Amino acid sequence: MVNGIERPLDLLNNSKGKEVLVHLKGDKQLVGTLLAFDIHINLVLDNTKEMQNNETKRNVGLSFVRGDTIIFISPASTSLKKE
Amino acid sequence: MVNGIERPLDLLNNSKGKEVLVHLKGDKQLVGTLLAFDIHINLVLDNTKEMQNNETKRNVGLSFVRGDTIIFISPASTSLKKE
Amino acid sequence: MVNGIERPLDLLNNSKGKEVLVHLKGDKQLVGTLLAFDIHINLVLDNTKEMQNNETKRNVGLSFVRGDTIIFISPASTSLKKE
Amino acid sequence: MVNGIERPLDLLNNSKGKEVLVHLKGDKQLVGTLLAFDIHINLVLDNTKEMQNNETKRNVGLSFVRGDTIIFISPASTSLKKE
Amino acid sequence: MVNGIERPLDLLNNSKGKEVLVHLKGDKQLVGTLLAFDIHINLVLDNTKEMQNNETKRNVGLSFVRGDTIIFISPASTSLKKE
Amino acid sequence: MVNGIERPLDLLNNSKGKEVLVHLKGDKQLVGTLLAFDIHINLVLDNTKEMQNNETKRNVGLSFVRGDTIIFISPASTSLKKE
Amino acid sequence: MVNGIERPLDLLNNSKGKEVLVHLKGDKQLVGTLLAFDIHINLVLDNTKEMQNNETKRNVGLSFVRGDTIIFISPASTSLKKE
Repeated sequence: MVNGIERPLDLLNNSKGKEVLVHLKGDKQLVGTLLAFDIHINLVLDNTKEMQNNETKRNVGLSFVRGDTIIFISPASTSLKKE
Repeated sequence: MVNGIERPLDLLNNSKGKEVLVHLKGDKQLVGTLLAFDIHINLVLDNTKEMQNNETKRNVGLSFVRGDTIIFISPASTSLKKE
Repeated sequence: MVNGIERPLDLLNNSKGKEVLVHLKGDKQLVGTLLAFDIHINLVLDNTKEMQNNETKRNVGLSFVRGDTIIFISPASTSLKKE
Repeated sequence: MVNGIERPLDLLNNSKGKEVLVHLKGDKQLVGTLLAFDIHINLVLDNTKEMQNNETKRNVGLSFVRGDTIIFISPASTSLKKE
Repeated sequence: MVNGIERPLDLLNNSKGKEVLVHLKGDKQLVGTLLAFDIHINLVLDNTKEMQNNETKRNVGLSFVRGDTIIFISPASTSLKKE
Repeated sequence: MVNGIERPLDLLNNSKGKEVLVHLKGDKQLVGTLLAFDIHINLVLDNTKEMQNNETKRNVGLSFVRGDTIIFISPASTSLKKE
Repeated sequence: MVNGIERPLDLLNNSKGKEVLVHLKGDKQLVGTLLAFDIHINLVLDNTKEMQNNETKRNVGLSFVRGDTIIFISPASTSLKKE
């Protein structure tokens, strides 16, 4: 599953088109389909949901997320499989 | 709807002239029509409204928003459709 | 009213000599006449007033405002017209 | 055990494929297998676990961790041996 | 009074040798005579006084102030005239 | 006393070998003899004392202080003379 | 004892192989043997101990410490001698 991850951005590249969980500073979480990212880790997500305490707080559709507020990003499929 | 988004800034480019929801650090939100942006994600919004708890707190007309206080930006139409 | 705003700094350029409302981090606000700005969004304001809860807290005359404490800047005329 | 560590990144290089403990700002901790890192100390971890008070709070599988939220990183084997 | 202020640093240049009020992050204020500044807005003040609630808390003589803790700087004469 | 201070770093240069008071973010203070500094305002102090509420909390001997946690630095002699 | 310290990094260079006390933002402290550092003040420590209120909270063995969370670093021998 982790073949081909030489550099951190490879994981983001592999996650394009898939659902990711984005942990932001200040205990905010976004879930959405990763459409695009750049070297600043700015992201575009589709079907973005704002989460709080594992519940959907709001659907915000497409979103542009600034990289410097991100703590970590996890492809949702890998976390679902292992929980 | 997401055709043509190769890089994060493409979403902002597609949102010019449209209403966007801007989430700022410290739980502030602005809604306004996106007129311009740059690579620092500095924005110009028209008809800007400061929001708190989903209610309009103040109309501030035109505004220049500094990029480094932004958490995420969402075109309002996509969020309205899905809520 | 928004003709000629191609880039965010165009709004600041159009606001020179006019009163602007400057929202700073930590819920401080300054109102003053915009005399100068640079690419770091450092500003010089004349007739600067420190505001709190929409009341003037102090007159500080001329002021140099460091860009990195600014959240957003709004020309006062556009906000007055729409309130 | 510390042979060959001339520069800080050498420790990360030696830890590839091994379990590491990552202390984040705001008292969050992640444990996972280090797959990749870059000069910004962005990491990819596999089998990532979010920890709180030394207990696993959540399994998040693969994760991309942004370097600027990291306080320190410790290969788990060295800490286990000495505790 | 504001002639010759084309760029923000012009105000600092005009204020050399004069008393300035320096507002720092975390509600600290310094008053002192501006002796020198650089492009990072690092300052040297003489006869520096630490202020709290408009009262002198401590005299610290000469001081080197790091630019990145500064919110705004105001020449004291302009604020005294207008209060 | 202030002759020869053209740029902020001149004050630090003049203070080498002398006792300085270093105010850090988060209300920490260090007092020590300034041995060295660089353009990031990283310092080396000798005979460093951690102060709290004007009392010595701990002697830490030689210390390397990172510039970006510093608010202001004051040569102790100038502050002692004026208090 | 302070011979040869022309620049701040000289103190770190002199401290290689010796025990250092590292003060981090947020009142965390680490004690360990300094193995390596770079210009970002990223460190590698061996036999790292997390300290709180002068007591060892945890042994974490080898650790990579990110420079930007560091307030100051003090070679332990100099502080022990003077306390």
